[in-house]
Amino acid sequence: MTIYELISKKRDGYELSDDEISFIIDNFTKGILPDYQMSAFLMATFFRGMNDRETMSLTRSMLESGDIVDLTEIPGIKVDKHSTGGVGDKVSIILAPIVAAAGVPVPMISGRGLGHTGGTLDKLESIPGFRVDYSINDYKEKIAKIGVCLIGQTPTLVPADKKMYALRDVTATIQAIPLITGSIMSKKLAEGIDALVLDVKTGKGAFMQAYDKSVELAKKLIAVGEQFGKPTIAYITNMDEPLGNKIGNWLEIEECIDALHGRGPDDLMEITHQLSGTMIYLGGKTDSIEQGVSISKDMVQSGKAYEKFLEIVKEQNGDVSFIESPEKYTKPKFITEIKTDRSGFIQSIDALQVGLTSVSLGAGRLKSDDIIEPETGIILHKKIGDKIAAGEPIFTIHTNKSHITEQAKVRLLKAIRISENAVKKEQLIFEKLDKNSL
Amino acid sequence: MTIYELISKKRDGYELSDDEISFIIDNFTKGILPDYQMSAFLMATFFRGMNDRETMSLTRSMLESGDIVDLTEIPGIKVDKHSTGGVGDKVSIILAPIVAAAGVPVPMISGRGLGHTGGTLDKLESIPGFRVDYSINDYKEKIAKIGVCLIGQTPTLVPADKKMYALRDVTATIQAIPLITGSIMSKKLAEGIDALVLDVKTGKGAFMQAYDKSVELAKKLIAVGEQFGKPTIAYITNMDEPLGNKIGNWLEIEECIDALHGRGPDDLMEITHQLSGTMIYLGGKTDSIEQGVSISKDMVQSGKAYEKFLEIVKEQNGDVSFIESPEKYTKPKFITEIKTDRSGFIQSIDALQVGLTSVSLGAGRLKSDDIIEPETGIILHKKIGDKIAAGEPIFTIHTNKSHITEQAKVRLLKAIRISENAVKKEQLIFEKLDKNSL
Repeated sequence: MTIYELISKKRDGYELSDDEISFIIDNFTKGILPDYQMSAFLMATFFRGMNDRETMSLTRSMLESGDIVDLTEIPGIKVDKHSTGGVGDKVSIILAPIVAAAGVPVPMISGRGLGHTGGTLDKLESIPGFRVDYSINDYKEKIAKIGVCLIGQTPTLVPADKKMYALRDVTATIQAIPLITGSIMSKKLAEGIDALVLDVKTGKGAFMQAYDKSVELAKKLIAVGEQFGKPTIAYITNMDEPLGNKIGNWLEIEECIDALHGRGPDDLMEITHQLSGTMIYLGGKTDSIEQGVSISKDMVQSGKAYEKFLEIVKEQNGDVSFIESPEKYTKPKFITEIKTDRSGFIQSIDALQVGLTSVSLGAGRLKSDDIIEPETGIILHKKIGDKIAAGEPIFTIHTNKSHITEQAKVRLLKAIRISENAVKKEQLIFEKLDKNSL
Repeated sequence: MTIYELISKKRDGYELSDDEISFIIDNFTKGILPDYQMSAFLMATFFRGMNDRETMSLTRSMLESGDIVDLTEIPGIKVDKHSTGGVGDKVSIILAPIVAAAGVPVPMISGRGLGHTGGTLDKLESIPGFRVDYSINDYKEKIAKIGVCLIGQTPTLVPADKKMYALRDVTATIQAIPLITGSIMSKKLAEGIDALVLDVKTGKGAFMQAYDKSVELAKKLIAVGEQFGKPTIAYITNMDEPLGNKIGNWLEIEECIDALHGRGPDDLMEITHQLSGTMIYLGGKTDSIEQGVSISKDMVQSGKAYEKFLEIVKEQNGDVSFIESPEKYTKPKFITEIKTDRSGFIQSIDALQVGLTSVSLGAGRLKSDDIIEPETGIILHKKIGDKIAAGEPIFTIHTNKSHITEQAKVRLLKAIRISENAVKKEQLIFEKLDKNSL
């Protein structure tokens, strides 16, 4: 077996055996298979795809490239959630304390901001002192102690994914469904879960913009999860406009605090409760997702979720005084309101453009070594369907770079469409998929 | 413009502009664009192809990556031939002296053996003393002096191709028609031709096995040649069985000497005269290809082509005594006849398997630094359609490695099919294509 033969085989549309896939992943991870052959293989896979067995095999090879966390000593059904990424998507940070407060352990290993979307780790690190770089032992201890821990990828977990992702990122092979599936599922399976809830975003601000592709991805993710014996439920959700009203790291933490106080925006809370309710159901605490959603809402109303969040921040070295008094946080140098000169109804808000603008303001990275300024970002005052009068502010931008303000303004106004006629709010959760959907 | 965007663009099936293609080729040649991004681009091109304008642009960018030989000072229409490569294809070595003897200058820059096929340079170098590493100045002088020169690629001609070919060779992206076209045509255009004849092989022993793909390649080659103002004629020829009766470097030179003495095998001579006749026609010496073919035959019968061959060997430092007395050449250590135990008619001879077996005997390279043993190879005693009696030799193998003999025997006998019923000889030249075929 040579890598040349395996590239040709995939290129010509033949199915690869488990041994062949593990040969590729093992040799690539060990540095034996050079990047230039791997990128040809990745591009061939982009075009030819992989069937469920191949995708399962890819995920297993990636998973076995590193350590796998064993959480069996911790009682309860451990459930995590993964989102394919969207603009303003801070759901993990609200949902983790809700689900943990409901008694379901949440082992959560998250990622950094990527392209136009923010990352859970960057958002958490905007809380002064908050650490996400704990060892796997600390991670296990913290889950055992308070039922939840949110950390970043460690070097020993799924090293194959780290290497593959870096290569995919520069060779235009990110958008291949089997590769996305292998990447997501190997990382989730490595963190020690028993069950998984997936939020597969679709629309302009999502990585997978086409609806049918989002469904295809969700099904592949479920197929792999179920084959590993982990009950998996996925939702296809709308990412045409940003989620919630705040984009940018600390701004999103502020919105999470509001949400945990019961003052979250409707769209954000609808998705959060649906996902956390599903986690509570998969965690064995209820007989239905609906009951799970009801418990999720109780956790917020009773203040238990907020208390759990304070516990998380304390446990992970964060300064809780900023959670209790968010107004004392560093302000950005420039806060500018952007107004529209038209009246009407918000017809669309291009989440991709809003996300990219937010990155340009300082809230994300264009290159991997760019430094994030946590106090920067965008506040949306209006969402799709909202009425707006000429002269009313539609966005507020927070940045430390004055020279970027004018450009950001032009870009954001272009990202908005205003209609003279009333516009219906968009549907947020399109579809629920599980093993019966395969 | 970033390479990432250009990879994505080709991946998604969009047309690349001239500037975009030259950006890729220039940066790759300069070492700015890394191999792992280039291989993703090459694989995307394998799947999406290129239209005529893109292929033309690719060829031009590759051509302009290095020096272009100027032969305008040499009188006459300079014509070369290129074959896409086959087993036993020694046509260049017979045709170059024929065409030069007919007064048409032949500037010929050739390649080394590749995979299962031999290379003109390796064959010529089997002649003791023969040099193919002359400078471009020497090459021009020799063409001016004797009307023909056969050398290898120099580092300053089409450096882009050298780098691209090495990468394609290990990433399973050889078989992409626009990439083959760019590679062939940039090299031919760089050597100083005014017109070109192409022999596009099809069938089991060809790189492009499918007939429709061979025609597609031929048309792309013609389109690019004609756009550069170089009249180009292509033939689609049969490479199901090896060409001629001898395979292996010196063995093929022996067969060329026979051919130039008028004793060449029918199939080899049919193709040779058709191609050299077409070159003589394109060189302005006749009004039709038929007349060219007739002159080509005259050149052999009159001994002028053989004389020209001696002149070439002398001019390129070869020892002509071996041409005049081939029997004095070093013999291989082991010469083994392979007989069949069946009687009947040869139905097929798998050229690919025969070529690979010849490589294993010492006649080719499996790795780029393997040393070729010029005295090794295979003699075919029968061709498709020939009658054979049980016990009659069908092959003779020449090798210095006794341990390989048994394996080669098994492989060669497997490569042959014998039918009880009479078998018709296969058609050799399927189709002629020129600018009117586009």
